[in-house]
Amino acid sequence: MEQVFDVAILGASGYTGAELVRLIATHPGMRIAALAADRKAGQSLGQVFPHLRHLDLPKLVTIAEIDFAGIDLVFCALPHGTSQEVIAALPRDLRIVDLSADFRLRDPAAYARWYGREHQAPDLQAEAVYGLTEFYRDDIRKARLVAGTGCNAATGLYAILPLLRAGVIDPDEIIIDLVTGISGAGRSPKEEMLHAETSEGIHAYNIARHRHLGEFDQEFSRAAGRRVEVTFTPHLAPMNRGILVTAYVRGEPERIHAALADAYADERFLVVLPYGEAPATRHVRGSNYVHLGVVADRRPGRAMVFAALDNLVKGSSGQALQNANLMLGLPETLGLEAAPLFP
Amino acid sequence: MEQVFDVAILGASGYTGAELVRLIATHPGMRIAALAADRKAGQSLGQVFPHLRHLDLPKLVTIAEIDFAGIDLVFCALPHGTSQEVIAALPRDLRIVDLSADFRLRDPAAYARWYGREHQAPDLQAEAVYGLTEFYRDDIRKARLVAGTGCNAATGLYAILPLLRAGVIDPDEIIIDLVTGISGAGRSPKEEMLHAETSEGIHAYNIARHRHLGEFDQEFSRAAGRRVEVTFTPHLAPMNRGILVTAYVRGEPERIHAALADAYADERFLVVLPYGEAPATRHVRGSNYVHLGVVADRRPGRAMVFAALDNLVKGSSGQALQNANLMLGLPETLGLEAAPLFP
Amino acid sequence: MEQVFDVAILGASGYTGAELVRLIATHPGMRIAALAADRKAGQSLGQVFPHLRHLDLPKLVTIAEIDFAGIDLVFCALPHGTSQEVIAALPRDLRIVDLSADFRLRDPAAYARWYGREHQAPDLQAEAVYGLTEFYRDDIRKARLVAGTGCNAATGLYAILPLLRAGVIDPDEIIIDLVTGISGAGRSPKEEMLHAETSEGIHAYNIARHRHLGEFDQEFSRAAGRRVEVTFTPHLAPMNRGILVTAYVRGEPERIHAALADAYADERFLVVLPYGEAPATRHVRGSNYVHLGVVADRRPGRAMVFAALDNLVKGSSGQALQNANLMLGLPETLGLEAAPLFP
Amino acid sequence: MEQVFDVAILGASGYTGAELVRLIATHPGMRIAALAADRKAGQSLGQVFPHLRHLDLPKLVTIAEIDFAGIDLVFCALPHGTSQEVIAALPRDLRIVDLSADFRLRDPAAYARWYGREHQAPDLQAEAVYGLTEFYRDDIRKARLVAGTGCNAATGLYAILPLLRAGVIDPDEIIIDLVTGISGAGRSPKEEMLHAETSEGIHAYNIARHRHLGEFDQEFSRAAGRRVEVTFTPHLAPMNRGILVTAYVRGEPERIHAALADAYADERFLVVLPYGEAPATRHVRGSNYVHLGVVADRRPGRAMVFAALDNLVKGSSGQALQNANLMLGLPETLGLEAAPLFP
Repeated sequence: MEQVFDVAILGASGYTGAELVRLIATHPGMRIAALAADRKAGQSLGQVFPHLRHLDLPKLVTIAEIDFAGIDLVFCALPHGTSQEVIAALPRDLRIVDLSADFRLRDPAAYARWYGREHQAPDLQAEAVYGLTEFYRDDIRKARLVAGTGCNAATGLYAILPLLRAGVIDPDEIIIDLVTGISGAGRSPKEEMLHAETSEGIHAYNIARHRHLGEFDQEFSRAAGRRVEVTFTPHLAPMNRGILVTAYVRGEPERIHAALADAYADERFLVVLPYGEAPATRHVRGSNYVHLGVVADRRPGRAMVFAALDNLVKGSSGQALQNANLMLGLPETLGLEAAPLFP
Repeated sequence: MEQVFDVAILGASGYTGAELVRLIATHPGMRIAALAADRKAGQSLGQVFPHLRHLDLPKLVTIAEIDFAGIDLVFCALPHGTSQEVIAALPRDLRIVDLSADFRLRDPAAYARWYGREHQAPDLQAEAVYGLTEFYRDDIRKARLVAGTGCNAATGLYAILPLLRAGVIDPDEIIIDLVTGISGAGRSPKEEMLHAETSEGIHAYNIARHRHLGEFDQEFSRAAGRRVEVTFTPHLAPMNRGILVTAYVRGEPERIHAALADAYADERFLVVLPYGEAPATRHVRGSNYVHLGVVADRRPGRAMVFAALDNLVKGSSGQALQNANLMLGLPETLGLEAAPLFP
Repeated sequence: MEQVFDVAILGASGYTGAELVRLIATHPGMRIAALAADRKAGQSLGQVFPHLRHLDLPKLVTIAEIDFAGIDLVFCALPHGTSQEVIAALPRDLRIVDLSADFRLRDPAAYARWYGREHQAPDLQAEAVYGLTEFYRDDIRKARLVAGTGCNAATGLYAILPLLRAGVIDPDEIIIDLVTGISGAGRSPKEEMLHAETSEGIHAYNIARHRHLGEFDQEFSRAAGRRVEVTFTPHLAPMNRGILVTAYVRGEPERIHAALADAYADERFLVVLPYGEAPATRHVRGSNYVHLGVVADRRPGRAMVFAALDNLVKGSSGQALQNANLMLGLPETLGLEAAPLFP
Repeated sequence: MEQVFDVAILGASGYTGAELVRLIATHPGMRIAALAADRKAGQSLGQVFPHLRHLDLPKLVTIAEIDFAGIDLVFCALPHGTSQEVIAALPRDLRIVDLSADFRLRDPAAYARWYGREHQAPDLQAEAVYGLTEFYRDDIRKARLVAGTGCNAATGLYAILPLLRAGVIDPDEIIIDLVTGISGAGRSPKEEMLHAETSEGIHAYNIARHRHLGEFDQEFSRAAGRRVEVTFTPHLAPMNRGILVTAYVRGEPERIHAALADAYADERFLVVLPYGEAPATRHVRGSNYVHLGVVADRRPGRAMVFAALDNLVKGSSGQALQNANLMLGLPETLGLEAAPLFP
């Protein structure tokens, strides 16, 4: 590896920012040239995230303090809403991987509907490429601005998209039941994310109105060539990392399995289990791998499709790095092949 | 309270046995006269379950050592298969609440199909009453042998039975997605139930072939007056207690909510949340209460029905005690009204 | 039980307030006549704590709205600092059990030192009785204002106080190592109490400067009849409830065990394990029981003394109720004998 | 990196075996040539550990099936007792890193005392080098057989050894209080390691008689040049990975901190926090790093010394790999610099 690219991370004091640092720390083709976290500016990242204290990193600064001249690519791990404003102010030739929700929906009306406000950078929105790597690889290679997917959305999309493309399931009968871990909620203090509130129990949240429905609608409809609306119920379970999708679909189970296996046969990170087996989130923890499975229902013509991934890696920061590798002309899997951490 | 009944617990060294002791310890109408645990005979219960060491209890004995002459009612918390043999050998006039799976299925063919062996006490099977208290209350009052329901089964039945009875959902389009805690797997050492194997992750198990499907088939078909087969996917989450059902059904959401609220309007332990709200298992932990909710899907004519209960209380030992109260002519709720433990 | 006393709970929207409601809900001698929570006034308690939604309770009001004329006793579960101001404004003949830290230290200078401000109600401070029931029982019976102990303090005091009184340990060589669960930190959102921050790990906090040192100094010095200063290191572990003290002391281990067993021989809630055994917090969870143990070190003249209790019950709300029983002339153990919840 | 060494792992179906595979999977200087697991022979490692299913690995075989001719180094991750028998039968010129307890104690009498049986390979025991890398680096480089340390032992040794060497603490007044996670207990099913038994609570175990005391005695006495006996109390906390030592020592706190910082100034994996700060296990999870801290007690001349590491990495498999790097002439830190996984 000769060339080493200089990258900046905006929003380094959140979990996805820290996860980018963790992954890039041993990446042979990238160097962290700047770290921004407006409210923590002046501190070291090791003060904010002690698990990274052994690393030799630049101090946290404000975004305004960064000289973007020498930066090859920016990871933007800022909150939704903030991201579009910050990115609109960055140099127009800068490669950007955005991890927020701001550029995921191509249709400004869909954005306004799901996020409750007008988009502030509609021209950038038109330019952005949706970051589901295995489905938009060629576009991402050429893109200047890539929009990271929602972590829940990615999990559901990996389970269902190839089945719609292959035409092996009924597009009107898709139910996505999902269980997610807690780190997806971020590091901002909220009563409902306290350990005492979330441990030792499970519940559904944002039922039938989770914003990732916007991504499902967009991608499923595109894949099916017609309007597709799914039912989607996310649940919160007492674990730090991991998303499990259990999708209920209609179709011939063995054909469904075959379609999934075919679609991902050459994918390094998408592992389709043998027919009849189902994955566990703990077996992909801390890694960029996705485990997928198909099990026949006892009723003919019905199947359950499962997908498990780590929300902070393949669901956000690992995906972002995979896309950045493509954008910089690096091998796509570089720095991402570490095995999951179990137990 | 004048009369105090003498009860025996067979299988006191398992979690459901210990939970019966916990509940009966402060029950004003029952006294624990005998505790059997064949492999731990000779020990005190406090040695086997230190959380009960403050109680003044009879020593653990073998079943053969118990004089059933003075016993008013027996709780049988033995493993599946063992239970039918033990109960067949007990005095024929003894009231029995069985917590195993042995007498749940009325049809011997169904038993053989789901449990992989012929029933050893088919005459007792015919006599047994299914222990879903709120639906079989009158039969239970007169019963000699009551079969406790499966804990997963109970959760799904509470969510769906009134809807089939009221005819407000399509019986052919029921999907029961379920998440259960770990205590339901019992206290026998198994690799897959080690803390390191189960914590920090989620996965589905026994997909499309869980034995509680036998109970669903039996009870849903009876309620609908026709054959009903549901799709059922159980998951295991890292929590000790609690079961959450997320059921996907077809019907008018507000009518569904009304049917559920009507059915349970006079029930002490079944709490239907306001329309649009969903329950959490942690809010029923350690208690005999069930929280139920109905939320409309974004697609018309579809809804999610939720039910949450504690598998060791309302799902087994609390249910057993509620049934025993009825069988002994005691107030049904006696000893069962303690509030949930949160956090 | 003929007489039923009317009680009010101030600060009902915190964990100790909710725990009081849980315990009093099945208490035969008390009725909850008023619930105050200034910021949640107007809501029902079931909205704030859904696990209590089945109870028939008065609405949450502001403290100012309560008519204290008919109230027999007030539980004050307000934050430190607020408590002394509120209590100073209450009718002077009202019986009060305060769960905050405001009246625990008899010496105003000690209060100022540990809490960093002057006490606002020094006359009340002089009147308050320290609420460690088993050691101040007679005073509590006659008290108007009882100050609940710190939950960490209570655990350490139960382990050590009888040993100092009996003179069986060296007062200059006491180390109290402690592990506490997370509910003790309360329900206010704090980054460091998020599930993602606290689960799957352990660390020490407030080392050598935890405020409960003030209580240790006060009570140990009184028991020993001389100045006693201990070393104290609290740790935070990923569990909701429970405190475990491991105290390192100098003395003859068997004499230490005998002194502890003698001191607590007639206590309902303090259970001394056989010599050589050590307790687990999970075996007292949700209950008012304390399990204590003594194990000899391999080096002669040294021992470890262990104590385990539930911080929200015996460490605060259960203790408060036990003291209230005494103040109202009710049996001391009334409403507090429920067995621990395990698993 | 030109040379790639062929290694074999004996005992690949346990947690330390799997952790070796995880670490070596991305190690540029080693290739896994053979994996043995007698009871799972014939299976793929992915069947036994699904988190490793994406790796291209040799099938599991019995030890007898391995041709050791082409193997450069063997990792032996077998149970205690089995290890010495297996290693005694291996070719005498084979480099071996043993992860069991069999070769940790140099003195056969100490081995017999702590493990309750005579050693079966005393000549090998004499040859073995204790694997605490930073203290035995030069011996390890030249060693044929290296004995991995106990994971608890390593944590305590890192905290205390430099202080004894520097003479800044009183060797007669050392108390090591320790909290460990659950993966250290291994994958064999045991009732006391079930999720329902270990979650949501904490307790001490093997008090004053844990076998790692043998390692403390050996290493502390050697460092101090005289007999040193410490007090040691291990606890089990509900977390998968991580060990935290809280050591209570006598000496000048700032000198203690300086001695620790000096000793580890050039060590890549041993990070001494600023004076007054204490570590958390979650900040080293999944990594080979150790975080150490020193905090002054409020009583002069006393201090608490803290050390946190991951029991499966720096406490066993990472340590083994670090030693193997030295034995093979590879850079010591190769394949071990991945940052911790948080949250």
